[in-house]
Amino acid sequence: MKHITCIEDLRQLHMRRVPRAFFDYADRGSYTEDTLRANSEDLAQIKFRQRILVDVSKRDLSTTILGEPSAMPLILAPVGLLGMQHGDGEIHACRAAQAAGIPFTQSTMSICSIEDIAAAVDKPFWFQLYVMKDRGFIKALIERAIAAKCSALVVTVDLQVIGQRHQDIKNGMTVPPEWSLSKLVDFATKPGWVSGVLRGKRRTFGNLAGHLKVSEDITSLSTWISSQFDTSLNWKDLDWIRSIWPGKLVLKGILDVEDAELAAKTGAQAIVVSNHGGRQLDGAPSSIEVLPEIVDAVGSRMEIMFDGGIRTGMDVVRALALGAKSCMIGRAYAYGLGAGGQEGVAKALDILSKEMLTTMGLCGVNTVAEIDDNLLAV
Amino acid sequence: MKHITCIEDLRQLHMRRVPRAFFDYADRGSYTEDTLRANSEDLAQIKFRQRILVDVSKRDLSTTILGEPSAMPLILAPVGLLGMQHGDGEIHACRAAQAAGIPFTQSTMSICSIEDIAAAVDKPFWFQLYVMKDRGFIKALIERAIAAKCSALVVTVDLQVIGQRHQDIKNGMTVPPEWSLSKLVDFATKPGWVSGVLRGKRRTFGNLAGHLKVSEDITSLSTWISSQFDTSLNWKDLDWIRSIWPGKLVLKGILDVEDAELAAKTGAQAIVVSNHGGRQLDGAPSSIEVLPEIVDAVGSRMEIMFDGGIRTGMDVVRALALGAKSCMIGRAYAYGLGAGGQEGVAKALDILSKEMLTTMGLCGVNTVAEIDDNLLAV
Amino acid sequence: MKHITCIEDLRQLHMRRVPRAFFDYADRGSYTEDTLRANSEDLAQIKFRQRILVDVSKRDLSTTILGEPSAMPLILAPVGLLGMQHGDGEIHACRAAQAAGIPFTQSTMSICSIEDIAAAVDKPFWFQLYVMKDRGFIKALIERAIAAKCSALVVTVDLQVIGQRHQDIKNGMTVPPEWSLSKLVDFATKPGWVSGVLRGKRRTFGNLAGHLKVSEDITSLSTWISSQFDTSLNWKDLDWIRSIWPGKLVLKGILDVEDAELAAKTGAQAIVVSNHGGRQLDGAPSSIEVLPEIVDAVGSRMEIMFDGGIRTGMDVVRALALGAKSCMIGRAYAYGLGAGGQEGVAKALDILSKEMLTTMGLCGVNTVAEIDDNLLAV
Amino acid sequence: MKHITCIEDLRQLHMRRVPRAFFDYADRGSYTEDTLRANSEDLAQIKFRQRILVDVSKRDLSTTILGEPSAMPLILAPVGLLGMQHGDGEIHACRAAQAAGIPFTQSTMSICSIEDIAAAVDKPFWFQLYVMKDRGFIKALIERAIAAKCSALVVTVDLQVIGQRHQDIKNGMTVPPEWSLSKLVDFATKPGWVSGVLRGKRRTFGNLAGHLKVSEDITSLSTWISSQFDTSLNWKDLDWIRSIWPGKLVLKGILDVEDAELAAKTGAQAIVVSNHGGRQLDGAPSSIEVLPEIVDAVGSRMEIMFDGGIRTGMDVVRALALGAKSCMIGRAYAYGLGAGGQEGVAKALDILSKEMLTTMGLCGVNTVAEIDDNLLAV
Repeated sequence: MKHITCIEDLRQLHMRRVPRAFFDYADRGSYTEDTLRANSEDLAQIKFRQRILVDVSKRDLSTTILGEPSAMPLILAPVGLLGMQHGDGEIHACRAAQAAGIPFTQSTMSICSIEDIAAAVDKPFWFQLYVMKDRGFIKALIERAIAAKCSALVVTVDLQVIGQRHQDIKNGMTVPPEWSLSKLVDFATKPGWVSGVLRGKRRTFGNLAGHLKVSEDITSLSTWISSQFDTSLNWKDLDWIRSIWPGKLVLKGILDVEDAELAAKTGAQAIVVSNHGGRQLDGAPSSIEVLPEIVDAVGSRMEIMFDGGIRTGMDVVRALALGAKSCMIGRAYAYGLGAGGQEGVAKALDILSKEMLTTMGLCGVNTVAEIDDNLLAV
Repeated sequence: MKHITCIEDLRQLHMRRVPRAFFDYADRGSYTEDTLRANSEDLAQIKFRQRILVDVSKRDLSTTILGEPSAMPLILAPVGLLGMQHGDGEIHACRAAQAAGIPFTQSTMSICSIEDIAAAVDKPFWFQLYVMKDRGFIKALIERAIAAKCSALVVTVDLQVIGQRHQDIKNGMTVPPEWSLSKLVDFATKPGWVSGVLRGKRRTFGNLAGHLKVSEDITSLSTWISSQFDTSLNWKDLDWIRSIWPGKLVLKGILDVEDAELAAKTGAQAIVVSNHGGRQLDGAPSSIEVLPEIVDAVGSRMEIMFDGGIRTGMDVVRALALGAKSCMIGRAYAYGLGAGGQEGVAKALDILSKEMLTTMGLCGVNTVAEIDDNLLAV
Repeated sequence: MKHITCIEDLRQLHMRRVPRAFFDYADRGSYTEDTLRANSEDLAQIKFRQRILVDVSKRDLSTTILGEPSAMPLILAPVGLLGMQHGDGEIHACRAAQAAGIPFTQSTMSICSIEDIAAAVDKPFWFQLYVMKDRGFIKALIERAIAAKCSALVVTVDLQVIGQRHQDIKNGMTVPPEWSLSKLVDFATKPGWVSGVLRGKRRTFGNLAGHLKVSEDITSLSTWISSQFDTSLNWKDLDWIRSIWPGKLVLKGILDVEDAELAAKTGAQAIVVSNHGGRQLDGAPSSIEVLPEIVDAVGSRMEIMFDGGIRTGMDVVRALALGAKSCMIGRAYAYGLGAGGQEGVAKALDILSKEMLTTMGLCGVNTVAEIDDNLLAV
Repeated sequence: MKHITCIEDLRQLHMRRVPRAFFDYADRGSYTEDTLRANSEDLAQIKFRQRILVDVSKRDLSTTILGEPSAMPLILAPVGLLGMQHGDGEIHACRAAQAAGIPFTQSTMSICSIEDIAAAVDKPFWFQLYVMKDRGFIKALIERAIAAKCSALVVTVDLQVIGQRHQDIKNGMTVPPEWSLSKLVDFATKPGWVSGVLRGKRRTFGNLAGHLKVSEDITSLSTWISSQFDTSLNWKDLDWIRSIWPGKLVLKGILDVEDAELAAKTGAQAIVVSNHGGRQLDGAPSSIEVLPEIVDAVGSRMEIMFDGGIRTGMDVVRALALGAKSCMIGRAYAYGLGAGGQEGVAKALDILSKEMLTTMGLCGVNTVAEIDDNLLAV
């Protein structure tokens, strides 16, 4: 990890080390990828005020997230298939997050199961839920998260209809991914990756055991999602989830101020402003474009998390300056994981934290609480 | 068609399978191609509002076009020379359209004649008319369309003067296209295409039989058009056409609000907002740029069809959100035809319909009627 | 000239046929070439209103320029060193202009002398004047133009200080160009060009005979200009020129509305809005950007000619729509000359005239007089 | 230096002649380099009014800087490690500056010491100060500058926290640079550079002798700065510096109008509007973007110097037109130094001065005092 100086370096390493189909799954967006690009490009347009001769010797990234102390205003977002980027990928990512003192969110579509992670780490983690048609299965899933003492439930609300990712189809990504593997080994496996993932035990969706009948269900990722996910999901269903899950609730995938207003009435503690990383509605605004008006509308009533396009600590400070309380990162740490497992995720977090500290110093602030739009040039 | 996931994939396949001169005829625009590019680029700038937790389990693309039910808000636009992209190309395209439950428009400049298509399909299709100097011929053409029970007449009003397409001249495109062939076979014929087109019977403009004296008239496409088309055509001539054609009338090629107002007084049922796919007036605004003001001006009096730059289902939803009742697609299906005949056109329609359904789902609407500018981010 | 369909094609041919140093002299701009690029790019931003169903069967490009009938609203601008692009280049260009029925302007820095051209053509041409320190020589030059019955004097007012053209220095362009030649023959001469220029008699500045002492004065183009041109030239000097030249006077190189106001007081019949083709003040606005305000200020008092970035007939219509009475073209015809002598210039004029006619037709006008800002989309 | 016509040419030559690590140190910026690019791009957007027929025969670049006459409104900015670009680099640069009649600023991070330069040149130069934790050392440094009769002290206030320059880390830049050298010789040394730098005596930071214990302290540049520089530095510390330094004081690194107001209260004679050449806060506005409001706020109370992105004489005129009294150049002369020592710096100054004179001439002004926003197009 010697010459790794930025997230893009981790991305390049990830690309070299992991079979292309899995790298692409993490890296690419839906359709023309216009929204994917907008996420990063719109962040880069936001300019800082450089401030000088302020004592910045006591800079500190600590904050609270959902009322709990966090070493940084960062959360590892739920990302599917982490275990295909690196053997036991979810465990590696969770350990790196906990070592850095920030929350990790496990995806429903993880390779490790809830129980796998719970057994491997000491502290609670967050669990992300996709709502499928089979409500019995969903209820069981929530109950497993309760049993595993997950400290927050993140319900993703922007993927009942799946945005097509051309590259996944061209690459032949399937459910279960184990079957994708059988094709990948022919052309793209890499030695380090093979020993880490291919020879391991965990190669299918750990949380879907029993639900996903491997022998019958080999299918493309998008077809599988279309068959399983419930397109009728609506605000009333949240009441049902609320009735099962007693803990903190986060709604992920809000991009419109009207939806933010509705979310504020559900009793959820937080929302994540997100367009699913440019993987769903192509042509949607960037997350950062809509953040300020959502903060204006509901920021006093809920915690606002930001997700979408964060690749630098500067981007984190930008989102915080526009009103986010914390940022979820997805690709930024997934690249680290693919590049080097737990160490790679730790490297990603180290890069982002140093960039945040430098940016804060050059903007003349010492604490996360001081970050507001006074830091931005108009 | 396995790894075809978007219209651009069909375009690439078309390019590989069909002699370049015919591909270019479909693909390229006039002069600097600024308007061609603007058509797509301006569409891509329009952003959607992502909406969540709406029951979108009953999405439905059906609508009406000119009062008739249509499975989707799409019409196959008139495109010249389809029969050179694939043997019996117009019949393939018409069959694909009718199988998908949407209208097909035959171009005056088709390779198959009106009668060829009428004999090959069960349901009525639309006929597109170019007005030439020889009004006797034009009258006969309209009467043939009546005899073939064509269900709408689309009069193209933006090509009395032809915009030069550099590539067609460089490629030696001629009228009749059969003569272009004699040069093409030397360097560019492809096996599949040869068996489909070159060995077939139909290799010249079917509708111009008798009118176009092959032995005498070998000339460049643009010279031929200049010699045949009537540059004096004006609003009064529409009365004459109206006196012959008793059915539904559509005016194609309106790009200015003053012209839209004039068109509304002709008794035509619909207009097509179009710049001829960036093939005529280079420097004209994109079709989508002018759509809203035309809808404002005459949308309550006529049906507004949109044409120009549609390459995705997202683009269709954009045009509908800005007030179009339906969209004509040209290149999008011509690429499919060149790539794989009827199956390729069906694939193009399948891609667009799925993209529309996904976009509607992620915007939280179930019906075409619900699509309005409330779906767009400002 | 078979596959030549646009000015850019002529440019490519010019580049292949003529030694690079002479091509570059015509093609390149000063410093970063920002203004050179802006000239064309800003023109391309101007959009037309496409109009339909107007009888455009009687389109006509004829107009008047300085009160004389002209077949088109075009003037061949003064361009230095034409005779190095093609043997007897100025004569070729002048013949092409006169055959097309438009004015040709001879540059002070021509290879052929005033008398050479006068002897070769039947009709009067225009003469362009650079004012040098040696006023006796300038007086003689004006008197030679009078003797040659030149029909207008174009005084260039934006080159008393020369904008550095990096490529000319790197290419070793000298005064006289004959000396540049001695270097060019080593590496870059092309057969057709050799027979046309190198074996001919005219290889130095014809108008400067006597004034330019060849044996002593071999120097770089920019050094020579700095030594000869009069940086103290100011409005009062125009009175002196007026006292010698009795005919029509045109001031070329106005880019600022205050200067246009001053020019209107000199008694000159016309001004040319120009930034010397992006060859002088790098960072100056494009010519088209400043045209409207200059037209507003002095358009009722003087004839406004436009110069800068015209590469298509669409560009000509754009400038006319914004208030120019006619357009000077420089590179557009110089490329033609380098590509093919008189025939090449004729081709350039043919291309532009056809593009103008098509644009007028698609905008629904028949005459140059009808071209105004009503043709433009706002 | 024959075909060198612009600063970019010097940059290319620098790149070829000097080991990449040292070239990159001068050339690159921090993080994504967005601010680095903005510095130049925003300058290029500023347009001039071309003026004509003004007597510009007496153009003159002379002005005053901090009350002293200067031949041009230019100052050589402090640049670290000049002595690694060329043997005795700081002496070469200082001599070129003094020969051209403008100030040279020595960086704290120079290879030559204050005393080295003082011994090599006749006239006073400026000294730039970085404030480190060891205030005894800083006091001694200021006293050495006093002893060397430095005519101004430039305190840099925007580098207490260092912005990461990826390329320096990848290239293994260290403190002291001598150690970087030991790695460079393996792969990148160039003959001319070797004899100039590698065989010389001066290969470490001359001003840090004693302070920097070479044997113990080999470390990366950024780590070293983090360990030495005082992040608690604030406005009060300026009083302490003022108590030691009796002469003219310049604060370098102001980019915000509030900081400019504070600076105006310190008694400093001048501020340098600067973002450290895009090497510090990535995402900061370009220097030119903030210049006008800073001039408005404090221009009447202090001398405003501009720094950031100057690559042409046109850029100098732009900054002056927006209210700067003079411009600091950094990379522009560092490229010259790397390309050819004192001669290269002289060439850079010659290029810029000629470009300034040409721009002034084409804008119709003769003196620096006449340059104001009346020269700019709105």
